[in-house]
Amino acid sequence: MLARAISLVEAGTEGVLEALKNVPARRSFGPGAPRVIGVTGPPGAGKSTLVNQLVGQGRGQGLRVAVVAVDPSSPFTGGAILADRIRLEEHAVDEGVFVRSLSSRGHLGGLCRAAGQVVDLLDACGWDWVIVETVGVGQSELSVCEVADTVVVVLTPESGDTVQTMKAGLLEVADIFVVNKADRPGAGILVRELEEAAQMDPRRGHSAAVLEVSALHREGLEALLKSVLKHGDWCESLGRDNWEKRRAEGRLRTFLDLVSEGARASAATWLQQDGDSFRQSLVEGTMSPYQAAFRWMNRA
Amino acid sequence: MLARAISLVEAGTEGVLEALKNVPARRSFGPGAPRVIGVTGPPGAGKSTLVNQLVGQGRGQGLRVAVVAVDPSSPFTGGAILADRIRLEEHAVDEGVFVRSLSSRGHLGGLCRAAGQVVDLLDACGWDWVIVETVGVGQSELSVCEVADTVVVVLTPESGDTVQTMKAGLLEVADIFVVNKADRPGAGILVRELEEAAQMDPRRGHSAAVLEVSALHREGLEALLKSVLKHGDWCESLGRDNWEKRRAEGRLRTFLDLVSEGARASAATWLQQDGDSFRQSLVEGTMSPYQAAFRWMNRA
Repeated sequence: MLARAISLVEAGTEGVLEALKNVPARRSFGPGAPRVIGVTGPPGAGKSTLVNQLVGQGRGQGLRVAVVAVDPSSPFTGGAILADRIRLEEHAVDEGVFVRSLSSRGHLGGLCRAAGQVVDLLDACGWDWVIVETVGVGQSELSVCEVADTVVVVLTPESGDTVQTMKAGLLEVADIFVVNKADRPGAGILVRELEEAAQMDPRRGHSAAVLEVSALHREGLEALLKSVLKHGDWCESLGRDNWEKRRAEGRLRTFLDLVSEGARASAATWLQQDGDSFRQSLVEGTMSPYQAAFRWMNRA
Repeated sequence: MLARAISLVEAGTEGVLEALKNVPARRSFGPGAPRVIGVTGPPGAGKSTLVNQLVGQGRGQGLRVAVVAVDPSSPFTGGAILADRIRLEEHAVDEGVFVRSLSSRGHLGGLCRAAGQVVDLLDACGWDWVIVETVGVGQSELSVCEVADTVVVVLTPESGDTVQTMKAGLLEVADIFVVNKADRPGAGILVRELEEAAQMDPRRGHSAAVLEVSALHREGLEALLKSVLKHGDWCESLGRDNWEKRRAEGRLRTFLDLVSEGARASAATWLQQDGDSFRQSLVEGTMSPYQAAFRWMNRA
């Protein structure tokens, strides 16, 4: 049922609101509410390997772990499907693990919105951890920041990322920096740079932690788990009011997202089913998209 | 007036449809229709320098050139504003050049949609060339592909980009590859790799051109201009039907984008002005975003 509901969210066709209208609002911190961990970073940083091992760590704690991988890679290549297969291999038989990749022919923005809605669904289904993995490019890392309570930014020394050249967004959203492939040359320099940057930018009352990890060799994972749990505790220590405020902002945003997606879906359905002459004028260009949208919005 | 209309599109607030309802549909190729050139590539590839020089090349042909820079960098740092200033220095006194950066606190998807609408506005105002520059990350390069007729993908040997590691999307949208900073080590290898990849993937009936450029030292720019003009001619040679089909798809997409943005804007305005108790329930979580959106969509 969960998988079907997620497919509905991903497709975003008309009728999805009808189907989802009883999904509750996402809960704040507290008993039963999931911890939502975002994992982001540039392509090739080893995010997927790290996420798989975080899943293992969470399972070791007896937690039920769901993974939502937001894959904005080319719709031509269908990267997400491949990713799902690779992931499933390791955890396929474990009922305490749920893995789902989100991909679509639509835009990145739509994907990120879908991720937020999927987190709501997973919350409603009682998962303990929800890990949202997304490639940290453009503004996707900012969306992760909106949906995740703890944001892990994964970097590698070899990617040529330095604090000077990396996208500012990645610096700003990180609660925990992971320098992955820490056995490679340049790791020490990157760690020192990140530590300096983290100290200079103590957002939200805490400095980002900087950890050296080798996901491939399974080194540094216990420290990562500890750091993730510690940040979660720190989040809880901020108190209910703080989190209620954040969730309230999220609810308003989700409402507006749903309204805008719903309007698109219903216009698309109408164009296909009843809008023959309207569609024709639009296709032929005798009516511009601007005139058409104005008419549609002001229809009786 | 153009600048004001663009600001409206960028803000996307309610009333924008009313203001834009007389904007005509974007024209196909033909006398007076602009050539829209997309320039994309990873961060740090030297896109802005190259675009500035393309502007110079276009001006040298007596063309009026508009530049739309879609900057999905962190909203915290306001990258676009800085970029505008740097650009303006070189062409500030030239009335044949229009430069505008688009940035917003919204999502990348929204920005890319705005870029398409801005191209419509620039078309309506009679610019000869419209250059759309965007950092090629995530799916932004696919959006450039939607709006631009000729897509230039800028890469550098030093970025560690190889055909194997680069995002598939960049390979697939390129009509012209520019290997910038071609004096740096590794340029020759990258050029050969791209040439092989381009030959293996003769999409749309032509293979992508591969050019070596040093934007900083102004080398290879004439070849780039020639290649851009040649691709434009090739586009025109495809004939009116081909382009009408493409424009028609664009019009349908723009219509749905406008409907979805319009619905969001009108719900947001309503929440602020009349939706007090509705908003309160949403903020407090007694009504979930899903219930709220369902009610809003089905309001009398």
